[in-house]
Amino acid sequence: MIHFAKPTVEQFFRTYSITNFAVSKDEKRLIFNTNMNGKMNLWAMDLPATYPYLFAHTDESCAFIEIDPENRYVLAGFDRDGDENYQMYAVPFDGGLPEPFITGDANDKFYLSHVSDDGERVYYVTSKDNPNFMNTHMRNLKTGKDVLLHLGDKAPTQVAVVSQDEEKLVYQSSFANTYVISFVKIGEETLYLTPDPDQVHIAFNPVFVDNDTIFFITDYDSDFSYVAKFHIPSKTFTKELELKEESVSSIKWVKEASSFYLTTSHGVVDKLYKYEINSATLHACTLPIDTIDQLEVAKSGAIYLLGRSATVPLNIFYSLDGVEWKQLTDNRVLGVSKEQMVEPEVVSYPSYDGLEIEALLFKPKADRDNGFTIFWPHGGPQSSERKMFRSMFQCFLNRGYSIFAPNFRGSTGYGSEFTKMVERDWGEGPRLDCITGIEWLIENGHTDRERLFLVGGSYGGYMALLLHGRHADYFKAVVDIFGVSNLFTFVESVPPHWKPMMDRWIGDPVRDKERFIKDSPVTYLEGMTKPMLVIQGAKDPRVVKEESDQIVAKLEAHGRDVEYLVLDDEGHGFSKKENEITVYSRMLDFLEKHQK
Amino acid sequence: MIHFAKPTVEQFFRTYSITNFAVSKDEKRLIFNTNMNGKMNLWAMDLPATYPYLFAHTDESCAFIEIDPENRYVLAGFDRDGDENYQMYAVPFDGGLPEPFITGDANDKFYLSHVSDDGERVYYVTSKDNPNFMNTHMRNLKTGKDVLLHLGDKAPTQVAVVSQDEEKLVYQSSFANTYVISFVKIGEETLYLTPDPDQVHIAFNPVFVDNDTIFFITDYDSDFSYVAKFHIPSKTFTKELELKEESVSSIKWVKEASSFYLTTSHGVVDKLYKYEINSATLHACTLPIDTIDQLEVAKSGAIYLLGRSATVPLNIFYSLDGVEWKQLTDNRVLGVSKEQMVEPEVVSYPSYDGLEIEALLFKPKADRDNGFTIFWPHGGPQSSERKMFRSMFQCFLNRGYSIFAPNFRGSTGYGSEFTKMVERDWGEGPRLDCITGIEWLIENGHTDRERLFLVGGSYGGYMALLLHGRHADYFKAVVDIFGVSNLFTFVESVPPHWKPMMDRWIGDPVRDKERFIKDSPVTYLEGMTKPMLVIQGAKDPRVVKEESDQIVAKLEAHGRDVEYLVLDDEGHGFSKKENEITVYSRMLDFLEKHQK
Repeated sequence: MIHFAKPTVEQFFRTYSITNFAVSKDEKRLIFNTNMNGKMNLWAMDLPATYPYLFAHTDESCAFIEIDPENRYVLAGFDRDGDENYQMYAVPFDGGLPEPFITGDANDKFYLSHVSDDGERVYYVTSKDNPNFMNTHMRNLKTGKDVLLHLGDKAPTQVAVVSQDEEKLVYQSSFANTYVISFVKIGEETLYLTPDPDQVHIAFNPVFVDNDTIFFITDYDSDFSYVAKFHIPSKTFTKELELKEESVSSIKWVKEASSFYLTTSHGVVDKLYKYEINSATLHACTLPIDTIDQLEVAKSGAIYLLGRSATVPLNIFYSLDGVEWKQLTDNRVLGVSKEQMVEPEVVSYPSYDGLEIEALLFKPKADRDNGFTIFWPHGGPQSSERKMFRSMFQCFLNRGYSIFAPNFRGSTGYGSEFTKMVERDWGEGPRLDCITGIEWLIENGHTDRERLFLVGGSYGGYMALLLHGRHADYFKAVVDIFGVSNLFTFVESVPPHWKPMMDRWIGDPVRDKERFIKDSPVTYLEGMTKPMLVIQGAKDPRVVKEESDQIVAKLEAHGRDVEYLVLDDEGHGFSKKENEITVYSRMLDFLEKHQK
Repeated sequence: MIHFAKPTVEQFFRTYSITNFAVSKDEKRLIFNTNMNGKMNLWAMDLPATYPYLFAHTDESCAFIEIDPENRYVLAGFDRDGDENYQMYAVPFDGGLPEPFITGDANDKFYLSHVSDDGERVYYVTSKDNPNFMNTHMRNLKTGKDVLLHLGDKAPTQVAVVSQDEEKLVYQSSFANTYVISFVKIGEETLYLTPDPDQVHIAFNPVFVDNDTIFFITDYDSDFSYVAKFHIPSKTFTKELELKEESVSSIKWVKEASSFYLTTSHGVVDKLYKYEINSATLHACTLPIDTIDQLEVAKSGAIYLLGRSATVPLNIFYSLDGVEWKQLTDNRVLGVSKEQMVEPEVVSYPSYDGLEIEALLFKPKADRDNGFTIFWPHGGPQSSERKMFRSMFQCFLNRGYSIFAPNFRGSTGYGSEFTKMVERDWGEGPRLDCITGIEWLIENGHTDRERLFLVGGSYGGYMALLLHGRHADYFKAVVDIFGVSNLFTFVESVPPHWKPMMDRWIGDPVRDKERFIKDSPVTYLEGMTKPMLVIQGAKDPRVVKEESDQIVAKLEAHGRDVEYLVLDDEGHGFSKKENEITVYSRMLDFLEKHQK
């Protein structure tokens, strides 16, 4: 019969993504953001039918989708070429071309926070007039009146939720990824949801169970996040529900069932639970995937989930009971089954100081193995590498590379203390965790000292640059994807609303000058002796192009082997299919060239 | 609340197409060709789920899709940039990158005709070694052996169907669109399915009901096509089923139900029937759309239909009984409902010689009406303008244009004699039908003498050029989309397998020299005084670019107002979304500019 060749990397390029979705209150329409037609656009399916139709055309990334409870309009936030200056557009309920709705100058941001039950009042946050700390407004759609509700100060502040009677607004102020306080404003009165707002902790995802009771997630006095309750009339804070060694990451309230659905994370996977508040009973749900990107629960109790596993691309799933799941979308890798892809092993190793580091080790299929390993420090850094599909990884594996991705100190999923360990220490502890990881790989025979590549993006790009500068002997060649090259310039170039968080996260360029020098990759230009490929989106607002420009210019001035690929219409990520293909192809060619 | 603007033409550009499909024998997979990701590619849905996934990536048009009855492979025919040199590729059953399977030089064509019940023998037709008349081969997939079964001669000949015992092959030889004979070959014996192969008629779509009995469609001794039966042992031809004033256009045999499903056409719409052969009873089915592009019936009796109406884009529908239909796909115009689009009126008028001409008259919504009318002579010419969605038409209507599309003599759907009236008379009768139609429009107050545009493609482009050259006073401006400009060069430049049909269709350039001169648009350059936009696909194999090049060059030499748009990667049609948008935008701008 007909003999077919094995899947090639080109097939892995042909995978579509879904970034977020919304379901109408009547559950008859599901709207989602996907690059199915080559660029990111909103598509819809009229449930129970699941054939998607183009719902709104902009060719831009979408930060949020909100469907009017009365099915008259859809609100969505689009940016421009990945600049992350999301502004609010309105789309007719049956789809069309998005029209500017709440927008400003090119650099302003507008985020939707809440829509009233009748769909007539829209609560939103904007950087306009307050780029560092953000302001909260309410727009009345009937009268057209716009009211300024809250002026952010000290930290970027946003309204998170509004009580049903719209008299109580809960705000979140973010001093850092690990320091977020929540407070409720009732008229001019302000009540903090946790006992001491000056103690470093996080408190987020507030939910009104009734007009007097707020449930939310916090790690106040705990290493792992749990569900807490704040009772407004009595001003009491109570711990409601905690799970051993799992951090609660989101809660959804289903009034009709007097229940919460909650997602938790522990290390490289997520879990889903249903919690009935009256009986205080917790039910573990099954999950069709390992990591959850978004969860929505309808009034009917139906669960809609966007998630992925290492070998399952982002798809939307549906369940009536949290046990049986139906897959609504069908993103897959062109002609490649789950079985032909690679699941990682979860391994762990003790770091230089005894701290246990968990890591994902991906081994290519034996008949593909090329003997080379890619060391991947993840981005964030307060994030983690998890069991989640990355076409880039499966591409590498298909070409025969092993991949090793350690969740070095600073990663999320291992408790708050672990996450905080990267703060004001970007370049020492995490770097040594990486080096110990490499030695562990070699000692355990997973890789060969002469066959290691280094690839990382964002903070991972920073780490790739730093490891290259300080430990070049380990690597054959290095790929830096929008990595920070200089902490001094980086802290100045981040978006305005990030600036208040810089001190806690990285430090102060004057006070911490010595450390900034020590931890900036540009300090180690002399050591960057291996071939390097630098990839950058021109519109990147987080790690600006200047970060890559300077390292490339300096290396070129030193006569080093450095290639530079700039994507003009991308930001901090690659949302357009053709750009993604350009990036992957270039990376694979670069690695192949330097195997010799 | 939020006020939204009315739909704009840009929304009409955002409509996806489906050209053809196949259903696996077990009905668990439906594979179809769509430009959903911007270019034509194969997508699949695993029924009953209807979320489509990319099945095969080539970015090229697909002529046929055949799924192995044993679910081991899929065969598909792809061309290059619209050159219509389709060659046969194989794709793994679960999708992937198509691999060349039965292919040749760039100019060769390979069409699949039949796959044996066990999926092991593939019958196909190729232009290789016989470009004018085509050869038929059988490829044994187990042994890899390829056998030449039939050498075409006199007319392009292809195997149409093979008996279950694979001992009888039915061939079709096409002398013209209106002269197609069918014959069955049993070893060296050849039997014609109709009594006299020398009489001009058509006989096509043969189906084996058993190894001895062939049903097929013919217009032998009739103005309308009907179903006939040929019994091989007795060599008898019998008329089986005819419908008054409807031409049978396709038949599908469902052995399990001893029934045929048949489609018929009359004028601007199609119909669907089920015919039980034992009781000789005919049941009319309902239809979810007005025109049928493809019909497939599974062993289970389930009907799969690709079709469209004037306000419904191409979609695939499914029915178990021919009464209740489920829509499997959901192609729609971005944010525009059926009700916001325009259904045509079916009108008719007596032509210059009394012949009744049917036409479609599209009137824009009153609040859009710009007072201008577009006169659209359809392509073919042995084809017709029908109730079928064209985003171009709905674009024009949205901009406020009326459209008038007459089915002039030569059109299909009105009987064989009517269709034959264009043969060897491309430029006289049909042209006068058009002129009479324009006068009828004006007399009946549908349009204003000063507000008429002329737009046509292919034969319609030819007619646009001819009308422009001979009757320029009627029109404000003219759009010619790959129209024939010169009959002398046209008959020489068509694909080799079209050449045997040229004499009957158009005539002989030597014998009919005077008529060729009279009916060639280039003869009337002097008269082409109005602004013109010429659109051409560089790879067009039917109306080659030279046809447009020469008219543009000559008009430019005369100093006329002519714009020329060439699409480098398209053939006789526009399959790529971005090209389609370029063409429509340019056309709309051109018309707008010349309203003054």
